[in-house]
Amino acid sequence: MSFNTFGKIFRFTTWGESHGPAIGCIVDGCPPNIAISKKDIQMDMNRRRPGKSKFTSQRKESDEVKILSGIFQGKTTGTPISMLIYNKDAKSRDYETIKNKFRPGHADYTYLMKYGLRDYRGGGRQSARETASRVAAGAIAKTVLKKLIGKKYNVVGAVVQLGLLGCNKNNWNEREIRKNPFFCPDKKSVKLWEKYLLAVRKAGTSCGAIIELRASGIPVGLGAPIYSKLDSDIASALMSINAVKGVNIGAGMNASILSGEENSDEIRSISGKAKFKSNNAGGILGGISSGQDIIASFAVKPTSSILNTRETIDRTGKNTKISVKGRHDPCVGIRAVPIGEAMMNCVLLDHYLLNRAQCG
Amino acid sequence: MSFNTFGKIFRFTTWGESHGPAIGCIVDGCPPNIAISKKDIQMDMNRRRPGKSKFTSQRKESDEVKILSGIFQGKTTGTPISMLIYNKDAKSRDYETIKNKFRPGHADYTYLMKYGLRDYRGGGRQSARETASRVAAGAIAKTVLKKLIGKKYNVVGAVVQLGLLGCNKNNWNEREIRKNPFFCPDKKSVKLWEKYLLAVRKAGTSCGAIIELRASGIPVGLGAPIYSKLDSDIASALMSINAVKGVNIGAGMNASILSGEENSDEIRSISGKAKFKSNNAGGILGGISSGQDIIASFAVKPTSSILNTRETIDRTGKNTKISVKGRHDPCVGIRAVPIGEAMMNCVLLDHYLLNRAQCG
Amino acid sequence: MSFNTFGKIFRFTTWGESHGPAIGCIVDGCPPNIAISKKDIQMDMNRRRPGKSKFTSQRKESDEVKILSGIFQGKTTGTPISMLIYNKDAKSRDYETIKNKFRPGHADYTYLMKYGLRDYRGGGRQSARETASRVAAGAIAKTVLKKLIGKKYNVVGAVVQLGLLGCNKNNWNEREIRKNPFFCPDKKSVKLWEKYLLAVRKAGTSCGAIIELRASGIPVGLGAPIYSKLDSDIASALMSINAVKGVNIGAGMNASILSGEENSDEIRSISGKAKFKSNNAGGILGGISSGQDIIASFAVKPTSSILNTRETIDRTGKNTKISVKGRHDPCVGIRAVPIGEAMMNCVLLDHYLLNRAQCG
Amino acid sequence: MSFNTFGKIFRFTTWGESHGPAIGCIVDGCPPNIAISKKDIQMDMNRRRPGKSKFTSQRKESDEVKILSGIFQGKTTGTPISMLIYNKDAKSRDYETIKNKFRPGHADYTYLMKYGLRDYRGGGRQSARETASRVAAGAIAKTVLKKLIGKKYNVVGAVVQLGLLGCNKNNWNEREIRKNPFFCPDKKSVKLWEKYLLAVRKAGTSCGAIIELRASGIPVGLGAPIYSKLDSDIASALMSINAVKGVNIGAGMNASILSGEENSDEIRSISGKAKFKSNNAGGILGGISSGQDIIASFAVKPTSSILNTRETIDRTGKNTKISVKGRHDPCVGIRAVPIGEAMMNCVLLDHYLLNRAQCG
Repeated sequence: MSFNTFGKIFRFTTWGESHGPAIGCIVDGCPPNIAISKKDIQMDMNRRRPGKSKFTSQRKESDEVKILSGIFQGKTTGTPISMLIYNKDAKSRDYETIKNKFRPGHADYTYLMKYGLRDYRGGGRQSARETASRVAAGAIAKTVLKKLIGKKYNVVGAVVQLGLLGCNKNNWNEREIRKNPFFCPDKKSVKLWEKYLLAVRKAGTSCGAIIELRASGIPVGLGAPIYSKLDSDIASALMSINAVKGVNIGAGMNASILSGEENSDEIRSISGKAKFKSNNAGGILGGISSGQDIIASFAVKPTSSILNTRETIDRTGKNTKISVKGRHDPCVGIRAVPIGEAMMNCVLLDHYLLNRAQCG
Repeated sequence: MSFNTFGKIFRFTTWGESHGPAIGCIVDGCPPNIAISKKDIQMDMNRRRPGKSKFTSQRKESDEVKILSGIFQGKTTGTPISMLIYNKDAKSRDYETIKNKFRPGHADYTYLMKYGLRDYRGGGRQSARETASRVAAGAIAKTVLKKLIGKKYNVVGAVVQLGLLGCNKNNWNEREIRKNPFFCPDKKSVKLWEKYLLAVRKAGTSCGAIIELRASGIPVGLGAPIYSKLDSDIASALMSINAVKGVNIGAGMNASILSGEENSDEIRSISGKAKFKSNNAGGILGGISSGQDIIASFAVKPTSSILNTRETIDRTGKNTKISVKGRHDPCVGIRAVPIGEAMMNCVLLDHYLLNRAQCG
Repeated sequence: MSFNTFGKIFRFTTWGESHGPAIGCIVDGCPPNIAISKKDIQMDMNRRRPGKSKFTSQRKESDEVKILSGIFQGKTTGTPISMLIYNKDAKSRDYETIKNKFRPGHADYTYLMKYGLRDYRGGGRQSARETASRVAAGAIAKTVLKKLIGKKYNVVGAVVQLGLLGCNKNNWNEREIRKNPFFCPDKKSVKLWEKYLLAVRKAGTSCGAIIELRASGIPVGLGAPIYSKLDSDIASALMSINAVKGVNIGAGMNASILSGEENSDEIRSISGKAKFKSNNAGGILGGISSGQDIIASFAVKPTSSILNTRETIDRTGKNTKISVKGRHDPCVGIRAVPIGEAMMNCVLLDHYLLNRAQCG
Repeated sequence: MSFNTFGKIFRFTTWGESHGPAIGCIVDGCPPNIAISKKDIQMDMNRRRPGKSKFTSQRKESDEVKILSGIFQGKTTGTPISMLIYNKDAKSRDYETIKNKFRPGHADYTYLMKYGLRDYRGGGRQSARETASRVAAGAIAKTVLKKLIGKKYNVVGAVVQLGLLGCNKNNWNEREIRKNPFFCPDKKSVKLWEKYLLAVRKAGTSCGAIIELRASGIPVGLGAPIYSKLDSDIASALMSINAVKGVNIGAGMNASILSGEENSDEIRSISGKAKFKSNNAGGILGGISSGQDIIASFAVKPTSSILNTRETIDRTGKNTKISVKGRHDPCVGIRAVPIGEAMMNCVLLDHYLLNRAQCG
């Protein structure tokens, strides 16, 4: 059972509402004796936090992580790591006027129907603010994997499509991703994207995005068929991120239009090592990592809260209209990059430990 | 932990290899006092079993399910239901010549690397034959849900794209799906698909497919955020099916190119009930069912075993070539329809029970 | 997997070390719409907290619970309830002199061997301070069950044996339990126990205890055979409490010396209801509650930290001696009463929800 | 969730009713590449099976295990191992006359109340016949541990009290345990026990027993605090066995009457190794194995089905009487020895793998 817990051995449990006093998470099952500094975690937090550019939510949060347990003299002790992040810039008044209306595209309606009540302030538990906790957990997972596997281990995400605009993935440049506010991997697309997103924002609307994750330095053998396949767990992890509607592994949905020859990746022996001639499988065969890079992508729907007026109903069942004034991202997909990376890190560490358990 | 178990409360565990004496599954957590006949299960089994048309594997299996426990006087007792299916037409000799080669696109390489040994006959545990057990479990889930929710509950799947050919989803016809050998919902596409698939087979190659699942009669409130979101569990379920590389919920990957207005489904009150004006969300908001139809689709890659020669290596690391002579489907995606339905039935029953647990 | 998580649907995860900044827990899977006040929780916390009498640890902790999430406008929302308790009176210096020695009876040695490092201050994660979190979770479980089942639902624990001294269980008096500092149910034993425990303390030694739990108002049908039997889960819950070495259900170990006639509880129909003539089963048959009171007891070993000198080794493997000066209970068993009650409340709510899931 | 599944990584799921066609289990998470022969399993099965002496049930079952999956060319493949045992000597007619009565001490009443129906033949799922599956799973766990840890690994159980009669545990002799029909470790007690049990049987009644388990060759560090403590999981495992009412670890319930000095095991350094001067802890400190022998014991209540007449009610709520004619053990505790050993083997392997996962 895992309502608010993710993972099997390396597990994290998140808690907190957007406008409550704080949010946080507990990381359990972490290997002991791994050096982890608050700074490592904070660096990843900063990549996700809002208010950094005009293209993301203007909510100002330092997202400073307090570590309350599980680390002693700078090292993990194998006991639960509790991390807490205060909510500082919650403006709950913004939500007073719409507290009785169901925002289209949001989970206002389904939460109320399911639970009979809901914390409407900032979306309460539905808020993407929950994902800050994931990033904190992911930073720990990443640090552990770099220790266990070595520095070659790396997970990088990028926005490869911003609304209607794609980019040239052949120009994938990791440094570039860290430079521009869109996590765009292709320097040539940045300016166009900037203009586009400004136009989207000005039009009072929003746009979606596709994020691609690339994990390298992965050992062969991670993944536990049949119902803990590596791709199955990645799909679950990415689909659990707010606003995600689709997940691809390798060729993904596109695999449907390939021929058998085009799709299956041929193998060659090069210097005594198995090398694949292509990577349509996304580094996973039969649910188990093949040693190739793991490639996954996911689609984030456009921000549901927009300035333009939309039709909806209220709690009493009456027809009404709504337009949202609060602080929102014109494209929530942008900030999904570090979240996707965090989930990938967590899944990979979990399977690293699972594989170590069963196969030594 | 769930290597070979799927589900949280309604759980099934599958076992068995393609060319072992039998395969089977145990269904646990099934509500008691539900009338279930072997016939109900067999009907679904027949939809999946091979050898029915020239478009699927020529392996002849009756796939007759033996129920060994958990049902007394025609009703479920709440104890585990053990079901067993004998393997009758396993031709292991077909695999002798290729037992030391890694078939591209298959999990031969990753299984061997992970476990140090593997049952190479018919792919062993990697074989899609395992999915017969899922269909048996799904038949039980469906019967239970029809009893708990009522006859309006329904899950239907169809192939909406066969290789390069799509179909007109506006012509979706449930009867038609049951008639043609492709589970194609659009009568007008059937002939073209037939020609196409014959050509694919004749060319010694294979093609992929996209399957769409539609579940109707779903109560509001199924799904448990954050890490047991309904869509997250559906993604995990569908991605666990052999050869699946992508999963969409509602608009899916396509959500990335919609605007905020296009994507979020407006709500109207009609005769006192909430009605959505569109269904880009695929019936799920914030991980919880909205009462709309649940729409999910998934892509199946082209069959990896093809007649045409491919490059690969063998167990000793030598470069070699392979062409597969065994009995295979030109498009494994076709038989994925009843499997997808089965997984959807299981996820929905599981969440029905979970919701009943927490919310009464 | 559940290193620091207890429960299946109603789950709590605890975190924190004895001398870290704080401890706490997250309660997940709680039914929504249940009124819970901080006061309800605090009342139970006060029953467990140290420093209340000369018979328990002199550490002064207010054990004030801060609720950080999951409750909105006084009611549970169905989302995780995060609770935090600051450590205020940690005197870590007490532990400097013994940080390199393994205290006999404690987990110093095993923690260090397993994890390679340990937070030695106050026992770190091994400390019974962790149980404060359990009491907080148990208070929530109790409140929920009183709402779901009604006020007749009740769990009461008492110390029925203090070291070498028993008491007359026929004099079981709930009010008396709340009055004396020993949770002794028999008024006549209190004075003797007081003298005894003062003598134990004065002698620089410690003593064990047996705690009995009685749960009444329990519906028939809780418990899920075979491996989630109600008694099996109670045993796991109670054995997880620090220093517990034995668990009995009903007649318990004593069942071994009864005859078939003496042991099995005969049934009579009284006013149309099934009534048992005795309760050796402790209210559980085949792992399922019978509607009788659930009776469980558990033994707590004597406090391992005593003033008297003991032989041990240090981290370097050298023989040495130790005598503990820190603040400790002469009988840790006393404070185990509210902890045992808390665990019983949690197990019962968990099974109430599980039963609702499967059996409606 | 784990209604019929035991374990976290090394998991087994059992199924089947006493008088159905068969019973069986699936072992999942087993390490690959371990040689396992049917003979290894059968040897343990024979120790548990009924009909071997006049002191146990006269039901004649060969309990031959059929392995249907997961083993290839004599070795585990890492995939699920499905094992099946046919029921051959089920005499369901014996149960016709009592099918509407609730046998005191049995779970007839609670199963019917919980599920609304039950397979009354031979107790259906409640039957101790289910434990045959545990022994099969335990045989695999034992074989794996002997491979991973070495031949020094050993788990031995014995009946140390038969009804009112104890034995001298100082005479514990492993060979003797295998010789006599009572699994009695003390040769001097066997004759007396034989007379006693014949008298019990002749009197139409039954008696209980206490079984002690000793596991040796255990590495330091197994066990995962807080809620997967090794002792907590052993307690859960043993309490899940039919008719068990109490579980002790080390000194167990008796720890309550020891002083702090008597109870906590002092440590000495002998040839550079930590040696404990006593073993009241039963080899477990803070939920983690200390490297000492693990000692656990459990009490089995007297067989509930006895020849003597007892009062009860029937399904319609009428008062009635019952005396059981079917084949039963005068002391079910005897056959609990191999079952207890099996559960101990499974718990230890599970924790071996868990520890390998987290701590490498």
